[in-house]
Amino acid sequence: MKILSIGAHGTAGRAITEHLASRGHDMITVGRTRGDIQADVSDLNQLQDMWQQAGTVDAVVYAAGEVRYAEFQALSSADFESAWQQKALAQINLVRTGLDHIAPRGSFTLMSGIPSRDPVVSGVAAATVNGAVDAFVRAAAIEMAPIRINAVSPSVFTESLDTFGDFFPGFIPVDLADVARGFQKSVEGAATGQTILP
Amino acid sequence: MKILSIGAHGTAGRAITEHLASRGHDMITVGRTRGDIQADVSDLNQLQDMWQQAGTVDAVVYAAGEVRYAEFQALSSADFESAWQQKALAQINLVRTGLDHIAPRGSFTLMSGIPSRDPVVSGVAAATVNGAVDAFVRAAAIEMAPIRINAVSPSVFTESLDTFGDFFPGFIPVDLADVARGFQKSVEGAATGQTILP
Repeated sequence: MKILSIGAHGTAGRAITEHLASRGHDMITVGRTRGDIQADVSDLNQLQDMWQQAGTVDAVVYAAGEVRYAEFQALSSADFESAWQQKALAQINLVRTGLDHIAPRGSFTLMSGIPSRDPVVSGVAAATVNGAVDAFVRAAAIEMAPIRINAVSPSVFTESLDTFGDFFPGFIPVDLADVARGFQKSVEGAATGQTILP
Repeated sequence: MKILSIGAHGTAGRAITEHLASRGHDMITVGRTRGDIQADVSDLNQLQDMWQQAGTVDAVVYAAGEVRYAEFQALSSADFESAWQQKALAQINLVRTGLDHIAPRGSFTLMSGIPSRDPVVSGVAAATVNGAVDAFVRAAAIEMAPIRINAVSPSVFTESLDTFGDFFPGFIPVDLADVARGFQKSVEGAATGQTILP
């Protein structure tokens, strides 16, 4: 399949892109400053430019979007707004504008994360916008069929424990290789509207 | 208890306010153009003014926030942004700014809605932001204790079937009296971090 990989140069994006390439897929990488196509997809104009360059693809995988981790009382309205724009609205607009650029029975695979269902201290902004992504996927799926859409919702990455481990005490981490398998499951499988727990 | 009722003059707000008043609570009503305090709580300045007037309360109940229902392909980025601001961020900021205005062991009870877990055609914006509210409540609860927070997530109201019934084919509607009981359960009970299904 021809697969558009957004955030392809980030921690998870690299693992996902390499794994899907090893499965024989033709990967088109997208990043803000690197990749086959350079675009900040949270900007609507750059998003449209990206689609012009990408043409029609069989699948889109997404692994980007930063959210501030801080105690609830330290999070501002602007922090929540930024989390929404970078993590939720960017993915929603990607799907919304991509419906005309995806092959019949193609798929979108978005990224959410464990705090929406299993909250952690300092993760309330992440929980909120990941919950939005999970619910968006469930709802959009019933209007997009036969185009499919799923989200992969990982725990803290094993490879990121040095940076994020303290936010997830006692959580079982997930190897990036297994996160990549979650994306493969969505892309090569037939499920839609699901939150995939890798 | 002294209870601040926001959106007190809307369809659900009236039922909630009257039910809690009938339970003997001292209700302070808030609306954009009516009520004991007049404020648009989605505006940060007006929100701060509201708290100045309200002082300290034992509980806050919220039933406001409009979201556009339309087919996914007809929803714009601005529609999703508006839904987020009116339904999710307004409630998040209410809690965030209200932590210093609530009595020890007080509570916030927010409103989400059924599309986040049981999606309907034309309800993807509603699903998304209600999913955000549900996840916010789960996550905020663990940092706010002993202050409590829950969301009431109703099906379509029996009293609104003429307007919204076609969006919810075969859904069992819920009487506003039972939605009000959901808020009572949150306010007078001891649960926190829950999505209450009335």
